[in-house]
Amino acid sequence: MLKNDLLLRALRHEDVKRPPVWMMRQAGRYLPEYIAFRNKYDFFTRVETPELACAITLQPVDILGVDAAIIFSDILVVPKAMGMTVLMEEGKGPSLPNTIKTQKDIDLLNEHDIVSRLSYVLDALKLTKHELNDRVPLIGFAGAPFTLLCYMVEGKGGKGFDKAKAFCFTQPELASMLLEKITQATIQYLIGQAKAGADVLQVFDSWSGLLAPADFDLFAAPYLIKIADAVAPYAPVILFPKGSNYALCSLSQYQNVSGIGLDWTIKPADARRDTQHRVALQGNFDPSKLMMQPNEIRREVHAMIDDFGVNGYIANLGHGITPSIPVRHAKAFVDAVKEYSLNSEA
Amino acid sequence: MLKNDLLLRALRHEDVKRPPVWMMRQAGRYLPEYIAFRNKYDFFTRVETPELACAITLQPVDILGVDAAIIFSDILVVPKAMGMTVLMEEGKGPSLPNTIKTQKDIDLLNEHDIVSRLSYVLDALKLTKHELNDRVPLIGFAGAPFTLLCYMVEGKGGKGFDKAKAFCFTQPELASMLLEKITQATIQYLIGQAKAGADVLQVFDSWSGLLAPADFDLFAAPYLIKIADAVAPYAPVILFPKGSNYALCSLSQYQNVSGIGLDWTIKPADARRDTQHRVALQGNFDPSKLMMQPNEIRREVHAMIDDFGVNGYIANLGHGITPSIPVRHAKAFVDAVKEYSLNSEA
Repeated sequence: MLKNDLLLRALRHEDVKRPPVWMMRQAGRYLPEYIAFRNKYDFFTRVETPELACAITLQPVDILGVDAAIIFSDILVVPKAMGMTVLMEEGKGPSLPNTIKTQKDIDLLNEHDIVSRLSYVLDALKLTKHELNDRVPLIGFAGAPFTLLCYMVEGKGGKGFDKAKAFCFTQPELASMLLEKITQATIQYLIGQAKAGADVLQVFDSWSGLLAPADFDLFAAPYLIKIADAVAPYAPVILFPKGSNYALCSLSQYQNVSGIGLDWTIKPADARRDTQHRVALQGNFDPSKLMMQPNEIRREVHAMIDDFGVNGYIANLGHGITPSIPVRHAKAFVDAVKEYSLNSEA
Repeated sequence: MLKNDLLLRALRHEDVKRPPVWMMRQAGRYLPEYIAFRNKYDFFTRVETPELACAITLQPVDILGVDAAIIFSDILVVPKAMGMTVLMEEGKGPSLPNTIKTQKDIDLLNEHDIVSRLSYVLDALKLTKHELNDRVPLIGFAGAPFTLLCYMVEGKGGKGFDKAKAFCFTQPELASMLLEKITQATIQYLIGQAKAGADVLQVFDSWSGLLAPADFDLFAAPYLIKIADAVAPYAPVILFPKGSNYALCSLSQYQNVSGIGLDWTIKPADARRDTQHRVALQGNFDPSKLMMQPNEIRREVHAMIDDFGVNGYIANLGHGITPSIPVRHAKAFVDAVKEYSLNSEA
């Protein structure tokens, strides 16, 4: 039914002429059209009003011509729906004033009927799916349990999330209870998103790279896999364990993982070596490079596609696009992928 | 001459009964004795007064019994000596209000006679060397050119140093001029440190892990190697390109690199595979794990040594110790290494 199903074909390793392209944070502050909404409505109003979330989600589809829409939302809607207070001060990042410290704090979290308390996201997905009119696939997403634990225990974004990690290391039983509750909530939420129209589901483990390999295997991987196993029957799953390059080989062994996102700290050839076309790879352009001139962006993007190969590959950034990037540079990135053909070097 | 030369023997891959141990930021805010100095003298007074720097440097040697002292100083003394204003607000990190933007800014930097403007560090080294009375080796250090460029262009610490990276990507000729100037200053400075008594020199590339492998090869590696080649005749060199695990194989090929520091995002076995005992390895305990109980710290430290092997290995953290770590936990880390023997599992 989709007019452009490149993303789904990449996730199935089907032959394509060129890879699909989208950008993390493509509906974001580098777009004047997004800023216009931001100046008018506060963060949670934008997130919780389906018409606003839908309009913001469509912006990069219309303006840049990306091959997928990703629903405008935030990973912290899940802790909020579980009962935590989440504040978002514009330009300052999130804060959660009542952090998780004890078993009682965990017991108070409500992971049941999460979908009813996140109906605004599902409504936004339904509306966006309708408005997209099958032009491109729609991506739903959630934060991974370890990354959500980081915020829920630390109370704010932090360089090293030392407090959250110390919580895991010193109280592993509590950490496991908390991670399990988040996992249950996330599974319901992602299945709900697929049922509401999400064609693909991405799980962001933005902070898993702060963990040593052995700790990733304790505090991140089991929950990622549990989620992938539960939601894969509803939609293909892309995991993005940012910075956890050491986990590529093991994560790619799981049949229910369709794609893995990469940041730019790994060579495409090394990522292919570790994953052997068992999964599609997504990434991994350094967003800072979008400050280069469009012709240089084009050259670098073509080199990146050469390195990853055309099939089983989703062109993307290695992290979200930053506010300072000129729109025409973002467009150069998208156009460079669309121009690519196997003869691009000729 | 040194009563305890374990560090030097590890760097020469000589047989040892147990590895040497020291901790990055071992003279730091987790020590009440350090806090006493901090409450009395501001940051640059502590750094620029040889008697204070010496006293602070000796604290962890006396209190924890580490196998090496590292001179108390800061990587930003070099940009300061080159003519930049560097402000340090307690607990808020550094700021450099006049950032590098143009060729003129670079031309104004003075990389000559840097040693004369950093004589306070050399005096601190001489005094410390005398006070140590050959108990343990003394480590001198400098920031790597790319990491110093990050601060000099960005003007402050930042999550991603996007501005500094964009400077490199969009004005590579200017970046190379700046990196070259910093390199020249750093070489003089490190040779001066060796002459003043430093037994080992460590180069901190704290932010190199923000670079993709190909960009590390452009903006970090050449300058690290140039420094290692110039200063190795004076003292063995340890490079610490934090997070740049992709560079281990290539950096370890250089004869003038004696050791490489690692953070905890790589398995010891993988680091050995990539470096093949061509260099000593240093690291890589996650400092957050120092919040665990002493008996658990001991278990984890012994497992780490088992994994790295005893020879050609320097037990350390994978990053600086954080202020919240109890002193007895830091001591447990050091003691665990000292207790280690090849029969520790028995």
